[in-house]
Amino acid sequence: MPTIKDIAHRLGISASTVSKGLNGASDISEELRQLVLDTAVEMGYTTKRMKKEEHKKLCVFIENMSYETSSQFGYEVILGFRQAALRDNWDVEVLPVTPTFQTLERYDTYMLRRGFSGAFLVGFALHDDWMGQLAATNIPTALFDNYVLKNPCVGYVGTDSFEGIDLAVDHLAALGHKRIAFLNGSLNSMVSDHRQQAFLESMESHGLTPEKALTAYGYYVADSAKYHVPRLLDAGATAIMCGNDLIASGVIAECARMGFSIPEDISVVGFDDIPISAQLTPALTTIHQDRIELGKSGYYMLSSLLKRVPISKMLLRPQLVRRASTAKCKERGMAIRT
Amino acid sequence: MPTIKDIAHRLGISASTVSKGLNGASDISEELRQLVLDTAVEMGYTTKRMKKEEHKKLCVFIENMSYETSSQFGYEVILGFRQAALRDNWDVEVLPVTPTFQTLERYDTYMLRRGFSGAFLVGFALHDDWMGQLAATNIPTALFDNYVLKNPCVGYVGTDSFEGIDLAVDHLAALGHKRIAFLNGSLNSMVSDHRQQAFLESMESHGLTPEKALTAYGYYVADSAKYHVPRLLDAGATAIMCGNDLIASGVIAECARMGFSIPEDISVVGFDDIPISAQLTPALTTIHQDRIELGKSGYYMLSSLLKRVPISKMLLRPQLVRRASTAKCKERGMAIRT
Repeated sequence: MPTIKDIAHRLGISASTVSKGLNGASDISEELRQLVLDTAVEMGYTTKRMKKEEHKKLCVFIENMSYETSSQFGYEVILGFRQAALRDNWDVEVLPVTPTFQTLERYDTYMLRRGFSGAFLVGFALHDDWMGQLAATNIPTALFDNYVLKNPCVGYVGTDSFEGIDLAVDHLAALGHKRIAFLNGSLNSMVSDHRQQAFLESMESHGLTPEKALTAYGYYVADSAKYHVPRLLDAGATAIMCGNDLIASGVIAECARMGFSIPEDISVVGFDDIPISAQLTPALTTIHQDRIELGKSGYYMLSSLLKRVPISKMLLRPQLVRRASTAKCKERGMAIRT
Repeated sequence: MPTIKDIAHRLGISASTVSKGLNGASDISEELRQLVLDTAVEMGYTTKRMKKEEHKKLCVFIENMSYETSSQFGYEVILGFRQAALRDNWDVEVLPVTPTFQTLERYDTYMLRRGFSGAFLVGFALHDDWMGQLAATNIPTALFDNYVLKNPCVGYVGTDSFEGIDLAVDHLAALGHKRIAFLNGSLNSMVSDHRQQAFLESMESHGLTPEKALTAYGYYVADSAKYHVPRLLDAGATAIMCGNDLIASGVIAECARMGFSIPEDISVVGFDDIPISAQLTPALTTIHQDRIELGKSGYYMLSSLLKRVPISKMLLRPQLVRRASTAKCKERGMAIRT
């Protein structure tokens, strides 16, 4: 491993200045501290603090996802991760991050400076700065619903979106639906991409034609529905598959507002099976993701990566939960629109 | 759970006859015993023996793969599985099976009769009887290099073939090879299919044209080479990617026999990194699979399935191991053929 002197030599500064940078002393500039840390990471240097705390501290970084209360998607993912990690005596810190934060500090540098041995990244978008940096990181990193090619330090854990969408299309096709719409979540998300592709493939494998007018990207929030549902219904949809349960809750509300009954006129299917889905009127048919086990799998993956076992992917099976928001297709001509 | 009486009622026979069938008594016919067991499995009945031994006995079924000595591919896969399982106090039995054996007894029935709680299936072909039965089994089953859709009791563990092939093509393309041949292993194998598809995709992503005359399916044995190498060289191959290291060892021998030097005239890449690959002349550049960790992952998956955690896929990263069998491409016109 390189020494402080090596770093000093490389940067053309004194060893004591390098020490100050590594130890976060306040009498050097922020820019120089950053440069020292970046160089240390690049040269494979590990601080004493990091060595001392090795196998002690993990971090969950979370973005674009609510997790504070038990009704929210991220809650159980993080809970499962913490539960599994604490059993192995790890401390876990949960840190919300923003795109701006990621542009201000490199991932490796931040991990080194804070003394984290590894991290679980949840809810990151494809174009996030840190996602780009992960191709070359040496820090064990488990990604929830994201994937990085060829780096043995980084793995992907999630639910098989292809099987999830296929279960939903199976269910709707068996109920006689042919004009199935798909209101997806946000662009710039790997799972959105997977679910889009899965929808097209599954429709075709069921002998159905996926129509452009029947698919749309929105956001993973209920409000997404009101911008898209009128168009999807105009295009003749008899069923709407949604990117998640929040979108589905909005779709149910928007259909009701437009005078359509669910499931009599329109069938609606969600994705995730968060607690709200059973409480909606009608209760939502959806695709279950086992979030506690996803979190635990994230920890298992990270603990394997820490032991240099290069797990690349770990996928859980989704499960169809049939509730009251889906029913046999009836001809849309019979639907009353107010 | 149904009782012995329920099974007796369903079959229209006495409860004592059902007992005899379940306990393997010799005074009823083999056909009736099979019928009793099949019905018990179908109705979800568990024998006392199975309950008593629950969490005690696992089985590794192995087919189409050598595993007896440490030089063979299956050896470490099974070793890793046993090591991990024994740590949790499981007994593990390793049973070689044949296609005929699979046609004689149903998978579920065999597992029930022998009191195994779960199994790890290694080396099975796509058309094997048991593979077909796994779509509907309730018995926790981890598959090495095989995949079954939508059954939450069955999971797939393996190395990411797509990334493995891509690493090899990357390496050869960087050495200037354009006419890269692929001598694959057997048909009717999921990994052969994956590697074939991966080869075509990877060639295209490197701006190279995969030619039909430069690809062939053989078998996962050294002898495969002599039937295919002359044709691949005639078609102008400057590098031969092989479905596994055994095929590559045959390719090296066949090229030498034909008067080509390796790597001067022809580059050769294997897959697996079994012990022999470092001993060949020249030492073989290959794609490493971590077989001990694959076995351990198989156990982790199976133990999760036993706890009803529906892991669907667990893939490990392959790794390129550069040795002496690959070199910069030279024009084939310069190769001397005797």
